[in-house]
Parts: sequence; structure tokens; C-alpha cells
Amino acid sequence: MHVNLERIKSDILTLAEIGRHADDRGIYRMAFTDADMEGKRWLTQRIESAGLQASVDGAANISAIRAGTSDSPRVLVGSHIDTVPCAGALDGTLGVIVGLECLRRIHEENVSLRRTLELIAFSDEEGRFGGMFGSHSVCGLINPELIATMDDLDGIKLADEMHRHGYEPLAALEAARDPESIASYLELHIEQGPVLDHLKKPIGIVDEITGLFTWSVWFRGEANHAGTTPMEMRKDAFMGLADFAHEVPRILDENGSPRSRATIGKAQILPGAANTVPGLVEFSLDVRDTSEDVLRELAESFRKALSAIARRRGLMFEFQQKSYLQPVQCGGELVEELTRQSERLGLEANRMHSGAAHDAQIMGRMVPVGMIFVPSKGGQSHSPAEWTAWSDIEAGANLMLHTLMSIADQ
Amino acid sequence: MHVNLERIKSDILTLAEIGRHADDRGIYRMAFTDADMEGKRWLTQRIESAGLQASVDGAANISAIRAGTSDSPRVLVGSHIDTVPCAGALDGTLGVIVGLECLRRIHEENVSLRRTLELIAFSDEEGRFGGMFGSHSVCGLINPELIATMDDLDGIKLADEMHRHGYEPLAALEAARDPESIASYLELHIEQGPVLDHLKKPIGIVDEITGLFTWSVWFRGEANHAGTTPMEMRKDAFMGLADFAHEVPRILDENGSPRSRATIGKAQILPGAANTVPGLVEFSLDVRDTSEDVLRELAESFRKALSAIARRRGLMFEFQQKSYLQPVQCGGELVEELTRQSERLGLEANRMHSGAAHDAQIMGRMVPVGMIFVPSKGGQSHSPAEWTAWSDIEAGANLMLHTLMSIADQ
Repeated sequence: MHVNLERIKSDILTLAEIGRHADDRGIYRMAFTDADMEGKRWLTQRIESAGLQASVDGAANISAIRAGTSDSPRVLVGSHIDTVPCAGALDGTLGVIVGLECLRRIHEENVSLRRTLELIAFSDEEGRFGGMFGSHSVCGLINPELIATMDDLDGIKLADEMHRHGYEPLAALEAARDPESIASYLELHIEQGPVLDHLKKPIGIVDEITGLFTWSVWFRGEANHAGTTPMEMRKDAFMGLADFAHEVPRILDENGSPRSRATIGKAQILPGAANTVPGLVEFSLDVRDTSEDVLRELAESFRKALSAIARRRGLMFEFQQKSYLQPVQCGGELVEELTRQSERLGLEANRMHSGAAHDAQIMGRMVPVGMIFVPSKGGQSHSPAEWTAWSDIEAGANLMLHTLMSIADQ
Repeated sequence: MHVNLERIKSDILTLAEIGRHADDRGIYRMAFTDADMEGKRWLTQRIESAGLQASVDGAANISAIRAGTSDSPRVLVGSHIDTVPCAGALDGTLGVIVGLECLRRIHEENVSLRRTLELIAFSDEEGRFGGMFGSHSVCGLINPELIATMDDLDGIKLADEMHRHGYEPLAALEAARDPESIASYLELHIEQGPVLDHLKKPIGIVDEITGLFTWSVWFRGEANHAGTTPMEMRKDAFMGLADFAHEVPRILDENGSPRSRATIGKAQILPGAANTVPGLVEFSLDVRDTSEDVLRELAESFRKALSAIARRRGLMFEFQQKSYLQPVQCGGELVEELTRQSERLGLEANRMHSGAAHDAQIMGRMVPVGMIFVPSKGGQSHSPAEWTAWSDIEAGANLMLHTLMSIADQ
């Protein structure tokens, strides 16, 4: 039994036109925009025209149900169809369409399974209003205060957008599920990194999803004239940042794991004139690892480095934690099942961690999760250039189909 | 014979109100603004009310003439009264007011001098339209193409501003002087650095004015997801910049002189998101020394470092020279005369170079120049906090007065 690749292709290419911008060919289907709502309506129709039961919860998560023969806890499969601005066609969407195809094939073939299967397309994974709104709601991780205050970069409130589309914002609180009702959550996603493409393997089996912390850091020195201030009398805030950047590899080597990542992705230098010694820098530090202990050790080492550099250069420093996501271990039995099924299907798979956050990371706090990665060409994502070979998509979809059939019958 | 400090004070404080902004207390007398023109009119009146002959040339440079007893080449003393935005009261202005006071005292005391003395307040030293327009014009370093194309950051053309204030732009070409007509140029200026304040000496005697080059540098790597891109597969443009910043002290130590300075004052990182590995950085490099040979060696070393870092990190690099100013040696006899006079007046003087550019740097291409520095409190300038003790101003003004009397009678 195999997925129907032509149907997957057609669904992906059709959905890709919803929110497509004529100028840059990017897709703009950000959460709770008109395009996102059009996408949700299209998905609902596709579910219904497959003969499956469609439903929507208070967080505007769209579901398709394929009933099992028992009332044992159900198996969820899903991802999201909202996008970042100027997105490609696959991030999130691929996992939803593959999940739908799996349910369609099982329904078409009248496969009898013990557990109910549910496809779920979560709202606002990408973060117009903060990110993972749909999966947070399902896991009961939101509250009325959050719902009332969440807004986007333009200050538009989530609650107003939900009202505009006919949703009662507080109904999102009712999207919370009983953990006992769910056996597991599976998600197929593009890797969004270069590893599988580099290894030329079609499948990644995720064993851990990275945790992360993000800091905003400030070094404050003294802005001075670049010509008249002797080198040894400077308090150059930018040189503090340069010193710190240089410590990053050492700190990862000494205190990190092979899964550690640290990135200085943005920096602002003030006053920012060629002929002025920088008096202030503000920069971001994004640190990831799959172990909370390692994250803690890295944070401590980065703090020490900042402090030592500030002392050495006569700078003041300050940092603020802007976000924290705890790492998630994938369900051991799901990882084994995915490994077994990929071997059975003759698919070369790479055991790996996910360096990006996904709905599975939220669901993983409540139920066992499993994730399949398919290769991203050149590691690209969040761009119209994001792509995965159809053959890899087919491989990933077949792996999902057989894994679902297996675990839904256990 | 001494300057009249009360008159200097009054002139400085009066001129400081022209262009003063009520909100931030900064002075906004940028070249060819209404405030600058009001300043020029006020200066002309002060010259005339002192019984001196005022004149203006085609570049809107304002002069005061105190005739000598011969037609030997004249001695010029000057600086500028235009300011940067949000300026303090002394940068440029102090040199003009001190020069005016010297001519006034010599005139009042009926001192007979062989050479004519000329105070000159140069237009646009600070660079609304590029900088040193007045001194460039006097040295014959402008041309019709330049006059037609120079514009400010808002795209306003110098020629239009000159027209608006009743000047014929091409008349600036007629401001060029015959080098044979000028014996020397002297300028008193605030140090704009911390050295004299630190040494607690009232006087700096400048022996060299720094040369400089400014580069814009680009490192181009690959923007990638901060979570999904393994450290060893990154082409992080920002880390290239951090490496380079780290090489700066080594390169100065190995190839520079004690007068070398190098500053990375501005940097832009793209795309500039906390969760994205930087794909592109553009940054400025400002390098100064008083020797052209040293500047050449430094440029070569910086180029090699950029190239090696780019190779090592898999980046592309590019750089563009944005500006070049050649170093200027002050006139040896003027430096000696300033030293002699400061000893005679019992003033502690520090022999030093100027790390900032001044009109003297342009004039130095044509005639021997001499410069007096007075201390900048805390090294501050280009800010309303810029200040110099009145006693130091008095010391510098007396040194200028006696030096002018001495060299104008030789």
C-alpha cells in the first residue's frame, strides 16, 4: 500500500497558490489573515471531499477524523498551514497534506484500525502572534490574559483577528484536550537544514527536538572620536562583542554537545558612524541544545564570558532572556517504530535531532511524539526557494502511512 | 599684552545661541543653513564693530583683515563656525573667536606688524556637503563638476543652498588664493580627544595631522536557520567580522606606529534576525596614521587579513575605499615658534599629533601650518557636553596672540 504522489503534488501546488504574491512568488499565508482562512476552508473541503469528517476547534485548528474500531486513545498526525511572510510551499503544509493523504489512503482501502486517526492543522505555528498558538491551545498552555494581549508586529490583536473571522477568542481555551485521549502525535516536516541533503538520505528520524534560549545582550562603553581617542583609552563596545563572538566556539567546545548551536544573528551598533568609536552594542544570542543541563551550562559559561570581557574592556553589560523553549525527547517506541518501518520500506534514514521548533515540541510535553524529516534542498527554508524532491516527499509520506497504520492498530 | 577673556567668553556664548535648539540644547548651525548664515552675519558685524575690515569670498568664507606695513605674504589664522547637528559651543567657533580676539587686541594696541593678518572662517568644515568646502576652495581644490553635484544627506544641493542665500556657486572657484600670497596658516582648535585633559596640560602643539582612509567592507556568506545549520556547515558573515575585529590590535601592533588608530564604527548584519545565521555584513573601517608609508602598510595588512578570513570561513569579501586624506606635517618653524612662545608664557605644552581632520590639513597642502590644541573635558566633542576650561581657552588664546605677533613681524 502506497500514497498517491500525484494527489499530494496537486494538493501542495493548489494550496501554494493561496496567498501567493505575484511580485516575489512568495506565499503570504500568515496566521489569521484572509489567505490563511481561505487555506483553512480549502483544507476543510479537501477533507470532506475525501469522505472524512472535518471539524474545527476553538483555536481554529482544523481536524480530519478517521474513526477506529475502538475508543482507545487516538493517534494524531499533523503540522500547520500558516506561513511566514514570503514563504515556500512546504514548511508545515507538507506535513498536513501528507497526513491527509495517509488518512485518505487508509479510508479508501478500508483498512480497519483499532485507534481513531486524526489529522490536525494547528493555527499560527509560525508566530504572527507568538507562535504555536494551536498546539499550545490543544495542550492547555494558554490563558485568557494571553489571548487578550497577543498581538502582531503591527499591533493587531489576535482576539480582533479571530472575531473578524467569526471565532470567539476565549473558545480557544476549550481546545485543550485530555492527555489520556491521545496515544501519540506524529509530524512530518521538511528538515529546514542541510544535513539530509548533504548525506543524500531521503529520511530523517528525529529523536530529540532542541531546546533554546534567546538573550538580548548590551555592552555599554563610551562613544568617542575615532581619530582623537588613543587605542588604550577606548571603551569600545563593539570590540566587546567581537571578543564575545570569539569565545562562542570555545564555549561550545568546552561546555556544549555535538548538538549545541550558538548564533549571534543581529547586532546594532551605536552611534554607528565610521569615525566614532562605538559606545553601545545590542546583540542577540540564540543558543540551542537538546539537553536542559547543557543549556544551563552554556548559559552560565556565556554569562561568565560576558562578565570577564566587560571587566577587561571597561564596559558595562546587561542581558535579558527573551525566550526559552525546553528540549523534548521523542517517544522511544515511536522512534523505534519509524526506524523499523523505514527499514521495511528500504528507505535510508538518518537518526538526528531537530534544531528548529515545531508543533511536535509543544505536543511532546503532553504525549509521546515522533517526527519524520525529509531533505531540504540546500538546507533552504522560509523562502520561495524552499524545496524537497518529489521522490523524497513520496518516501516520507509512505513511511508516515505505514507507521500510522502500525501504531494505530497497537 | 593679553587677550580679553571676557570678550572671548561673551562672543562664544552669544554665537552659541545662534542655531541653539530648545529641546536638546544642541547647536544646529550646519553649513549654509539659515542659522549658519545668521552666524556669518553676526561674525561680520563683530569684525566691523572692532574697526577691522570684513570681507567674504566666493565660497562664503568670512575674513577680517588687519593690514601690515609691507606687502609680504600674509599670515592667516582661522577655523570654522559651521557645526555638526547637535553640536557644542567650541568646535571651530573657538578658533574663529580667538583669531578675532587676537586681531582686535593687535588693532587696539596699535601694534605695528610687517605682515597683514587675516582671520578666516571657512565654510562647511563639518561636512554637510562633504566637508572642508571653504579651505578646499581657498586651496583651489574644487571644480565646477564638484560644485554642481555636492549634496547633503537629504539630497539638497550645495549650489541650490548657495543660490538661496544670494551666492553664485561658481564664484567659489574665484576663492582660490595664490600660495605666494600666504606665509602661513594657524589654527587653534579644541583637541576633541582625552589626551590633554588626561595629562592636565593646557596646551597641545600639533606637529602632524593624521592621514586616514575609510573602507566599506562586505563579507558575504550564507543566511541559514540558526537551529538547523550545524556549526561546521555555516558560512557566518558576522563571524568573519568578529575574526577581523580580533586582528585589528595585532595589525596595529605589528604594522602601525604609536599614532595609528583603527576603528570599526558601524556594521550592518543581514538578514538580522536572532534565529538566522548572518548571510551578509557590511562594516566600516577607519584607519589613521601620520605617515603615508604606515597607512599603506596598514592597508595591505588589513587586506591580507580580510582575504585570509574569507578563505578560512568560506566567505566572499569586497572592500571599497570611501575616503582618503593624506597626512600633513606642520611647519617646522611654526612648531618651534609655538614651543618658544609657550615657554615664554610659562604654559605647559604637549607636543602631539592631531587625530582629527581640520581646515589646517587642507591648508597644509599649500602653505606651512601650525595648530594649537586646548583640552577637551573628558575628550568630548560633537555634543552639547563639549567644553574647555576658560583658563585653558585664555592660555591658548594668549599663545596664539604672541605667536601671531612674532611671525607676522618676521
